[in-house]
Amino acid sequence: MDKIIFIICDGLSDRPVPELKGKTPLEAAFTPNLDKMAKGGVIGLIHTIDKGIRPGSDVAHLSLFGYNPKIYYTGRGIFEALGIGADVKPNDIALRGNFATIDEDMNIIDRRAQRVDHTENLIEALQKIKIAQVKIFIKKGTGHRAAVVLRGKNLSAHVTDVDPHHTDTKVTKSIPIKKNPKAQHTANIINEFTKKSYEVLRNHPFNIRRKKDGLLPANILLLRGASKMVDIPNFEKKYNLKAACIAGAGLYKGIAKALGMTIIPISGATGKPDSQIENKTKMAKKILKEYDFIFIHIKGADSLAEDGNFLGKKKFIEKIDQAMSQLKNIKNTLIVVTSDHTTSSKLKIHTADPVPVLITGQNIHTDDVTKFSERTAYQGRLGHLRGVDLMPILVDYLGKAPLYGA
Amino acid sequence: MDKIIFIICDGLSDRPVPELKGKTPLEAAFTPNLDKMAKGGVIGLIHTIDKGIRPGSDVAHLSLFGYNPKIYYTGRGIFEALGIGADVKPNDIALRGNFATIDEDMNIIDRRAQRVDHTENLIEALQKIKIAQVKIFIKKGTGHRAAVVLRGKNLSAHVTDVDPHHTDTKVTKSIPIKKNPKAQHTANIINEFTKKSYEVLRNHPFNIRRKKDGLLPANILLLRGASKMVDIPNFEKKYNLKAACIAGAGLYKGIAKALGMTIIPISGATGKPDSQIENKTKMAKKILKEYDFIFIHIKGADSLAEDGNFLGKKKFIEKIDQAMSQLKNIKNTLIVVTSDHTTSSKLKIHTADPVPVLITGQNIHTDDVTKFSERTAYQGRLGHLRGVDLMPILVDYLGKAPLYGA
Repeated sequence: MDKIIFIICDGLSDRPVPELKGKTPLEAAFTPNLDKMAKGGVIGLIHTIDKGIRPGSDVAHLSLFGYNPKIYYTGRGIFEALGIGADVKPNDIALRGNFATIDEDMNIIDRRAQRVDHTENLIEALQKIKIAQVKIFIKKGTGHRAAVVLRGKNLSAHVTDVDPHHTDTKVTKSIPIKKNPKAQHTANIINEFTKKSYEVLRNHPFNIRRKKDGLLPANILLLRGASKMVDIPNFEKKYNLKAACIAGAGLYKGIAKALGMTIIPISGATGKPDSQIENKTKMAKKILKEYDFIFIHIKGADSLAEDGNFLGKKKFIEKIDQAMSQLKNIKNTLIVVTSDHTTSSKLKIHTADPVPVLITGQNIHTDDVTKFSERTAYQGRLGHLRGVDLMPILVDYLGKAPLYGA
Repeated sequence: MDKIIFIICDGLSDRPVPELKGKTPLEAAFTPNLDKMAKGGVIGLIHTIDKGIRPGSDVAHLSLFGYNPKIYYTGRGIFEALGIGADVKPNDIALRGNFATIDEDMNIIDRRAQRVDHTENLIEALQKIKIAQVKIFIKKGTGHRAAVVLRGKNLSAHVTDVDPHHTDTKVTKSIPIKKNPKAQHTANIINEFTKKSYEVLRNHPFNIRRKKDGLLPANILLLRGASKMVDIPNFEKKYNLKAACIAGAGLYKGIAKALGMTIIPISGATGKPDSQIENKTKMAKKILKEYDFIFIHIKGADSLAEDGNFLGKKKFIEKIDQAMSQLKNIKNTLIVVTSDHTTSSKLKIHTADPVPVLITGQNIHTDDVTKFSERTAYQGRLGHLRGVDLMPILVDYLGKAPLYGA
């Protein structure tokens, strides 16, 4: 065995939902393919960072790839920017942004402006903003997302977010995390950009039309996750596995790119619940001769749970299950299915509940678990893992782990 | 309860073997005694170093004895040398060696010369090798193994191995791990000794006879694991347990000796699959009045798996099981059975799969597991342990653990 298909279903797991008779969306979904894989493989629970730590998708992915985020994480902006193809140079500051809706008093109405999309004209308008001493590059991300790269002298990533991360509060001011002239300078630029983004967007024809259509305007770009380019070991060299990434959303392509994986263009991968997941598993099968490690990212379950749509999440998980049928009868390959974090459909946030993991392949151990779910996972042979344990275990299953001692 | 019999069956666990209907040798073996112990005791899985870390026998044993190898491990040579009775002084460099077979171009044909033995005359011939500025002492180990001790000024253990650890490649040159005149000097000595060992052995009568018999010649001594004497806390003082070691193979006696255990001479203990295991358990019973902690090492399963002989391994495990019958009805004593690492009979290497552990004794917890195997161990009460967790648990079972806090 010498190949790995590594599938991360973002926010796959959940907490029990009373409306689903106390089941989670994963437990309530009809998942014959995943269950068959569970039956033939080994299962367990992963605390992607550690027990009780509620992870963002970025640090959770780093951990699952075997990189301790306490060492390698410098903020999410850099991954968003790389993922959507932004050109980031060593001293640039990258931020991620949401097109959001605010009222005239700068109160946040919707952090995602009803998950607005097709923002190309808004990006073009924002690109005209001029701020002294800095060049600003703006790139569209999937849906309501964007990345902003600041280039200039005396910039620092040690600044707080403008995005307060919840509604019913005002847009916050970016401030230095520690007193430092560079951080103050950068925070000033970010605050000026934020103000100007509202001026440019509030009466933009795109938003006037949205209001007419009874939709919330995308009238501000809320920035967060300021970060510098990361210095992180190359995945292929670390594991001696030629690696590819099949993903829709920018963040995941950005993480893969930062680790040196090849990004495979994929049609119908939107990073949203309408994504054509089956195209991803078909593509994985197609490129399996060329690559040793194929990372597939599937976003939809997380977004649906964050919107409180547990029924939609259940249906989306059934779509994931169908896509798994493409991976039947693949020889010589470990197939791994897991998630980066739990997303509670009731709380509409990430939680620290461990995620289930499933590993299937020839001649590895199996266990007595025959269903892939949060509830069955704790009964599996793998027990409780941390995210950073997973890659060493997989590389050992391939018979390629380095020997410690003699 | 105040005694422990601590049995490490080297390389006991395995991966599922298709020829054994997907069972491991341990699962396929008839083991009524071990299963009875499992029924009356508690069971779990040990990651001797950590999850996904593939351990050598040396570091795995240190961990199981409660010594973190990241602190105490200096290389395997010292343990091999101590174990076969070599006299090692504080500034000496000890290396372990294999009698191996190479062709005229220094290509490695067999790293163990078909597990050659009875090499006394070869050792005697090698002892005549003279190299400037250093004294060389060579000791026979079990089977194809030997230890070499270098004594002189300006020696360093920071040198690479001559043994490339696999076949179909040439004998490698020892080089300094970091640039350093002492390490360069030591590497030069090792390279010269390697070359001279071939010159001395290639036409030795022992090998001429082997060739006539259709066997591969033992025509080189391949050195590895250069290390200095270790500074490691005494086991008896650490745990307040008077400790003895019953083992055949040199490495394990060496580790025990480094920890200050008494080495008990034992007849029929060869360190090989023909070892009289029952003599070991009989001896343990005999010396139980004198000692509080008796370490029994049983090597065969590992060697058989490294040779791909899963049927032999299954039979050997049945022999281990029979030897356990000697330990029936021993009062006042914990009996612990575990392994240092998994050895896959198909991959013919150590793997990082956790090893099963079984602890039985009066008035300790039990669980619902009634069979001792890789597949049942994950269902046991002990869950997943690291190697260094085991000794504190055992000492606490005796009621002798130090109190933390007040």
